[in-house]
Amino acid sequence: MTEQGEGIRDLGYARLDTDRESRTGDPEVVYGAGKTPDQVVEILRALSEAHPDRAVLATRLTDETVEQVLTSLPDAVVDPVARAVTLGPLPPASGRVLVVSAGTSDAPVAAEAALTARVYGAGVGVITDVGVSGLHRVMAVRHQLADADCLVVVAGMEGALPSVVGGLSGTPLVAVPTSVGYGASFGGLAALLAMLNSCAPGVTVVNIDNGFGAGVFAARVARSAAPHESQ
Amino acid sequence: MTEQGEGIRDLGYARLDTDRESRTGDPEVVYGAGKTPDQVVEILRALSEAHPDRAVLATRLTDETVEQVLTSLPDAVVDPVARAVTLGPLPPASGRVLVVSAGTSDAPVAAEAALTARVYGAGVGVITDVGVSGLHRVMAVRHQLADADCLVVVAGMEGALPSVVGGLSGTPLVAVPTSVGYGASFGGLAALLAMLNSCAPGVTVVNIDNGFGAGVFAARVARSAAPHESQ
Amino acid sequence: MTEQGEGIRDLGYARLDTDRESRTGDPEVVYGAGKTPDQVVEILRALSEAHPDRAVLATRLTDETVEQVLTSLPDAVVDPVARAVTLGPLPPASGRVLVVSAGTSDAPVAAEAALTARVYGAGVGVITDVGVSGLHRVMAVRHQLADADCLVVVAGMEGALPSVVGGLSGTPLVAVPTSVGYGASFGGLAALLAMLNSCAPGVTVVNIDNGFGAGVFAARVARSAAPHESQ
Amino acid sequence: MTEQGEGIRDLGYARLDTDRESRTGDPEVVYGAGKTPDQVVEILRALSEAHPDRAVLATRLTDETVEQVLTSLPDAVVDPVARAVTLGPLPPASGRVLVVSAGTSDAPVAAEAALTARVYGAGVGVITDVGVSGLHRVMAVRHQLADADCLVVVAGMEGALPSVVGGLSGTPLVAVPTSVGYGASFGGLAALLAMLNSCAPGVTVVNIDNGFGAGVFAARVARSAAPHESQ
Amino acid sequence: MTEQGEGIRDLGYARLDTDRESRTGDPEVVYGAGKTPDQVVEILRALSEAHPDRAVLATRLTDETVEQVLTSLPDAVVDPVARAVTLGPLPPASGRVLVVSAGTSDAPVAAEAALTARVYGAGVGVITDVGVSGLHRVMAVRHQLADADCLVVVAGMEGALPSVVGGLSGTPLVAVPTSVGYGASFGGLAALLAMLNSCAPGVTVVNIDNGFGAGVFAARVARSAAPHESQ
Amino acid sequence: MTEQGEGIRDLGYARLDTDRESRTGDPEVVYGAGKTPDQVVEILRALSEAHPDRAVLATRLTDETVEQVLTSLPDAVVDPVARAVTLGPLPPASGRVLVVSAGTSDAPVAAEAALTARVYGAGVGVITDVGVSGLHRVMAVRHQLADADCLVVVAGMEGALPSVVGGLSGTPLVAVPTSVGYGASFGGLAALLAMLNSCAPGVTVVNIDNGFGAGVFAARVARSAAPHESQ
Amino acid sequence: MTEQGEGIRDLGYARLDTDRESRTGDPEVVYGAGKTPDQVVEILRALSEAHPDRAVLATRLTDETVEQVLTSLPDAVVDPVARAVTLGPLPPASGRVLVVSAGTSDAPVAAEAALTARVYGAGVGVITDVGVSGLHRVMAVRHQLADADCLVVVAGMEGALPSVVGGLSGTPLVAVPTSVGYGASFGGLAALLAMLNSCAPGVTVVNIDNGFGAGVFAARVARSAAPHESQ
Amino acid sequence: MTEQGEGIRDLGYARLDTDRESRTGDPEVVYGAGKTPDQVVEILRALSEAHPDRAVLATRLTDETVEQVLTSLPDAVVDPVARAVTLGPLPPASGRVLVVSAGTSDAPVAAEAALTARVYGAGVGVITDVGVSGLHRVMAVRHQLADADCLVVVAGMEGALPSVVGGLSGTPLVAVPTSVGYGASFGGLAALLAMLNSCAPGVTVVNIDNGFGAGVFAARVARSAAPHESQ
Repeated sequence: MTEQGEGIRDLGYARLDTDRESRTGDPEVVYGAGKTPDQVVEILRALSEAHPDRAVLATRLTDETVEQVLTSLPDAVVDPVARAVTLGPLPPASGRVLVVSAGTSDAPVAAEAALTARVYGAGVGVITDVGVSGLHRVMAVRHQLADADCLVVVAGMEGALPSVVGGLSGTPLVAVPTSVGYGASFGGLAALLAMLNSCAPGVTVVNIDNGFGAGVFAARVARSAAPHESQ
Repeated sequence: MTEQGEGIRDLGYARLDTDRESRTGDPEVVYGAGKTPDQVVEILRALSEAHPDRAVLATRLTDETVEQVLTSLPDAVVDPVARAVTLGPLPPASGRVLVVSAGTSDAPVAAEAALTARVYGAGVGVITDVGVSGLHRVMAVRHQLADADCLVVVAGMEGALPSVVGGLSGTPLVAVPTSVGYGASFGGLAALLAMLNSCAPGVTVVNIDNGFGAGVFAARVARSAAPHESQ
Repeated sequence: MTEQGEGIRDLGYARLDTDRESRTGDPEVVYGAGKTPDQVVEILRALSEAHPDRAVLATRLTDETVEQVLTSLPDAVVDPVARAVTLGPLPPASGRVLVVSAGTSDAPVAAEAALTARVYGAGVGVITDVGVSGLHRVMAVRHQLADADCLVVVAGMEGALPSVVGGLSGTPLVAVPTSVGYGASFGGLAALLAMLNSCAPGVTVVNIDNGFGAGVFAARVARSAAPHESQ
Repeated sequence: MTEQGEGIRDLGYARLDTDRESRTGDPEVVYGAGKTPDQVVEILRALSEAHPDRAVLATRLTDETVEQVLTSLPDAVVDPVARAVTLGPLPPASGRVLVVSAGTSDAPVAAEAALTARVYGAGVGVITDVGVSGLHRVMAVRHQLADADCLVVVAGMEGALPSVVGGLSGTPLVAVPTSVGYGASFGGLAALLAMLNSCAPGVTVVNIDNGFGAGVFAARVARSAAPHESQ
Repeated sequence: MTEQGEGIRDLGYARLDTDRESRTGDPEVVYGAGKTPDQVVEILRALSEAHPDRAVLATRLTDETVEQVLTSLPDAVVDPVARAVTLGPLPPASGRVLVVSAGTSDAPVAAEAALTARVYGAGVGVITDVGVSGLHRVMAVRHQLADADCLVVVAGMEGALPSVVGGLSGTPLVAVPTSVGYGASFGGLAALLAMLNSCAPGVTVVNIDNGFGAGVFAARVARSAAPHESQ
Repeated sequence: MTEQGEGIRDLGYARLDTDRESRTGDPEVVYGAGKTPDQVVEILRALSEAHPDRAVLATRLTDETVEQVLTSLPDAVVDPVARAVTLGPLPPASGRVLVVSAGTSDAPVAAEAALTARVYGAGVGVITDVGVSGLHRVMAVRHQLADADCLVVVAGMEGALPSVVGGLSGTPLVAVPTSVGYGASFGGLAALLAMLNSCAPGVTVVNIDNGFGAGVFAARVARSAAPHESQ
Repeated sequence: MTEQGEGIRDLGYARLDTDRESRTGDPEVVYGAGKTPDQVVEILRALSEAHPDRAVLATRLTDETVEQVLTSLPDAVVDPVARAVTLGPLPPASGRVLVVSAGTSDAPVAAEAALTARVYGAGVGVITDVGVSGLHRVMAVRHQLADADCLVVVAGMEGALPSVVGGLSGTPLVAVPTSVGYGASFGGLAALLAMLNSCAPGVTVVNIDNGFGAGVFAARVARSAAPHESQ
Repeated sequence: MTEQGEGIRDLGYARLDTDRESRTGDPEVVYGAGKTPDQVVEILRALSEAHPDRAVLATRLTDETVEQVLTSLPDAVVDPVARAVTLGPLPPASGRVLVVSAGTSDAPVAAEAALTARVYGAGVGVITDVGVSGLHRVMAVRHQLADADCLVVVAGMEGALPSVVGGLSGTPLVAVPTSVGYGASFGGLAALLAMLNSCAPGVTVVNIDNGFGAGVFAARVARSAAPHESQ
């Protein structure tokens, strides 16, 4: 393992962008899919050493990797629904992200968004199972929408929830399509297309099942909207 | 022009299914796209001769064809929004179809559905511009939904309206995606997929912009639900 | 487990829409895919408690979930072909749904449609293995078509059966594409597109393999068409 | 214009395969799309000089090209429905191709198939407007199917006709999807996929609107099946 | 198990088309995918009883089904490459089908085509591993092409072999795309599209991996071309 | 023209959501595509009457509509690059949106985003023609990125600019794919997919060419981040 | 018009990368699609002033733009087949690119590739109309393939030519799919997929109709292969 | 096992193109996917016997096949990252290929490209984990780009790296999209489309995950560019 220039740490199979925090305000994250348990552990450790004062995050972990992380890094904290771990102290919460999801099956993606937003420095609330086919459930949570600085709306199947929520509130809204569905949902494509075509102005979209990306974005918006934030 | 067997009338370029009414309860219709004005006129005339006691319908007409029809068949009645004409007396109305559309641009498809349902023997009501991003507009018409025997819900873009309406009512609901939208709506594909994946149980779907098919189906359902109908 | 407002029962991981029956005439259903056996059991039990006088339904169950349901809810009844269970007394049958399927491999989807329609209050008949490449099989059942209040036509591969049946009868027809096929059937896409483009007027379509949705819709149509029904 | 080796005639912008007849039994054909009127005329003339004793064919011609051909090559014969011309004497007819089409709008493709099969040496019959939603029209022509050596079945929309015809007859059958349809027909893709997935064994398919390819293939099959053919 | 009308044998889960041979000249075949081993055995036995004097065929068999068939029907003959079995005496060979495949990995599809053509009454030859990137391999078998009555050309990846073979011979040619390939072959879609767009006139195409369909078609063409065939 | 309930103004062909401002903080906008010039004028006038103290916006206007607007509403202001008009006084600017575009051809979409953000109350800066194939152009504007409260990054072709910009800055970033490109850009699909798959965390995406949606979203983020904003 | 930093020239609507030649060895090119005639002229003039000693290139020009260029820049040279112009002296030719195209309709793309390679400093040869369905045409030019330093192979429809040529020669080969074709060629997608899946090792691909990109690449390869090139 | 003509070795299930080296300068390679371990061993041995003086290559090997190869061919050398083996002495290195990859997960594809280029006779360098969201990592390796004769740039997700690298250097560049990504990356389709639409001129593309093809191509370019190469 050698250092190679400013802001790069070379692990042989990976060159970490240790400079990312100074550049973008947030450290690099370990995307676990396609990496071995040992690689996840080693990258987590290296990132944590580079950022000892704040939590680093690993997502998309298999059960095997989670076990290996817990064995090798006993201070790591596991979020079993989000299939993710954090290592190090969470930052103080600044601003508020509200994660709203349409169905029970969308829970893992919503949890990944919520955990990510928290790790990236925002306060987070979660409301689950608010499907558009039962509008009274949406209406029942309507006033909570206005209290947030950024909304993350998670839905599979026809992906209609962001349009309905976006019509009820002017709060910035990030939509996350999930791969929940069957037949012609085509792995989340139906929800993705619906969200991109939302008739509610100001809806933005991230990739299918990408709770992580939505969480990062929402935390940035919420932090900058927080009243006493000085950036 | 020769007769060839029972239930077939051969115009050379077309073999009319004059037997369709006895078989399915409804006469054949002229789908105008890809036919010359003269062909539309001749087929309309032949169908009207085979069914003198009830209206026959031609859809998807160009301006040129509409003019030719009005010149050649002065008794024809034009619906300019639906781009369609009828020839002959409308049947008595039995049962009630309600056509609900999401946006101003969906009007031609909604009009085609409404006219078709009327020609096929149902009473018809129309509610326009009820987008999901303004739920109060949906709520304002909520009680009209229950009075219908069949709903036709027309929407482009993200196609979310059928899910919302379908959650408010147990009336049979036919969804019609329209090609209204841009970018990744892909000519109505986004709305079509959303409707096929609706989380509201019991939503069925017809082809993109196919107001005609929705109208036929809805009229059949409404007619059979009418209290004094004897079939 | 807490109650949260009227019409919502919050299980923590799910918020049940216990108000749905009063709103749409039919109770919520458990879609089993992506839920754990314990979740299916708990939701079934909660829904059954909310609707003690009529059957509740769970679909898309794995073998493991079926076993768990039978152990925990000994009054549940399993339909092994439909991979579904019911809990509670079936409602009286009103009107008649006829489910017609094209091939042996389409049986699970046809069974799901039939069971659903029955749970939703319609009488149900089933005809299997009526492929269009042997028209005499279609012709042999032709007169049964007219006796139904709503047809559900299930087919994979080229999805041609709804067009043929739809040309023989004016009964409202819901087509269900199945994922049966190989190569360029693309998981049922070929059948779906064929059905959406049916030349038989008045054919509506549900999602690939969505026997449940077709059953709900057909039951609603059949019930409203039943002679002594008072709605 | 120079000769370059055996079997090639170089026009500068095109190198004609004048050897094709000896290699495959049939001369090269002019595909008119994307060629200027002058290019079509010059290639037709060159091919006709290379094959003075049998008809050469140009397809997919614009009105402008047809006029230019008639002016420059007064012996050319135009088929206005097929948008094609022939130059030179038709070969004797050997074997029999039957072209069956589903709707009026499929006529240009059916005509291209019929003319091509005739130019390639087969006898040809044509039956039009035999849609599957009126099965009695199919049944009325059933016995003509068995008299053919090869069937060409042309259909747009849901593309179901080849499956129905293929179930009625063991004659070799080539299916031609057409771009007739709207919405989710996607320019003929729905019909193409349906035909590729036909449940009738032994159906083969050519490209969307490719009446020419079907005609070539069918003529070859019919010629080889003709009783006194010696190849 | 009951008989229901002429030409139908009802097994409960399947209604056999025992009349198909008299109608199309060939008996029904068991498509094994999605059927249980017991169902395959029972259908094979029923078809064999209906057609005791000629082989019946079952395709797409799993290893488990093959074992069950061999145990229950000891007279069955297995083709391990084609994953298929036959039961009963093969018919005499009439005419000649030549199956040409591009790569080693295409062998199962080529074997299915060859076995099917033989069961359907044609003589069959097979040439394997003739890829277009080594043209001398194609050239080496060139003269065998002309001796066949129908060619079946099997290729995956870019699917170019039918175009090359089709330019060398005027023999009717059926192309079979296979799902061999990776990346943007999309399960055979690349080869399918290439074959549909072949610049060699007279190439027809069947579904991806559909060796069976190609074999049926080719046998019919070859039989009708056989010199002493009386039809 | 009649008033129908609170928050709805019914123009016959459209039902305006005049309540949207109080609900979401921003008034409804006229999406001009598919509307006649007279409809655009009438809706603009009605919205302006409902919101006399702030600008209303119409987008996607044809030349004919722009002329009709200027004739009928002489106070309207045209943005010719954005193909849009505003009517009424612009709100004070709060917070700062920076619109960055990749190529000259992306200008209309960038202009629509910029104008929309300004109408929705944010200050706006624009940087054009910053393609990733000339990184020094990106680097030259690097420090301007940090001064913005929200970035809108517009790109066609391979859509790589958001990934590069997103790696240089932690400012919230909305990516807009444009339909600029040819061949396999498929009308902006390539750029859309690239942006959805960006490796830079926290990139969100709107529909192809949807500068309007990006502008609305960015303005909301920028306004809430402005230091003296009281919400 | 202002200068802004090293290597950038700002025209207001475009920021030219005048530094590109020193960075990549080749100057920037004007992609004409979507630009006004005046913009093309101004950019051409600015690039020519920055690179007075070598030709600059504008591609994808409309007829109107070509006329405007010839009027404003009388020294410009037009290639009418390639729809492109050059301004300034061509560089000396180093190394040899051979452009091979499959059909007459592919000529514009082949011409764009050839002109681009010449402008980028390579010697260029062109062979047209070498389709795979007439292999003797390919064989006739076989020995010319080995003399080139890089091959550009242009084909539409099934896109098989690169596989055949790539099997005959080890010269580096860039394949260019064209949008020539119809039906299921889907605007060149069929050829693109075929080329990406070529079984000939070492075939690379550029975008549909992207003769320019192929020409740039091929020139770079050819120049570096030239014996006396000093780079 | 028999010899059949010049340049073909027939193994029964495969016909080896032993003449390929003399034709294209490089021997045939074993593509392991879909082949049994025994087949891979036998083909490797046969190719090695035909080319005893240089390494032959087998790619896409399963763990089982690798073990079988090591057992049967103890001189074989395994590259575990590339999942490939070589047998025989590597050729001397001529010219230089540089393989640059975007992320850790792209390593197997990059390794396959590197090994292939080496087997095909080029010198090879590798730089890993150079993502575009950390431009300083790209900049840090910038000067190495100019030293190469051909670049292979490997990236998944949004596939932006080739555009960025292509803007920094005029060295010929082959882009390899990988299937790394999730959601709407669609198995590498997003990266493939991005690379095909690169705004950097002169980028060519190979199939998704096709490191082999990129390696072959790059080696050919590098070899021909090497100063003392005589071809």
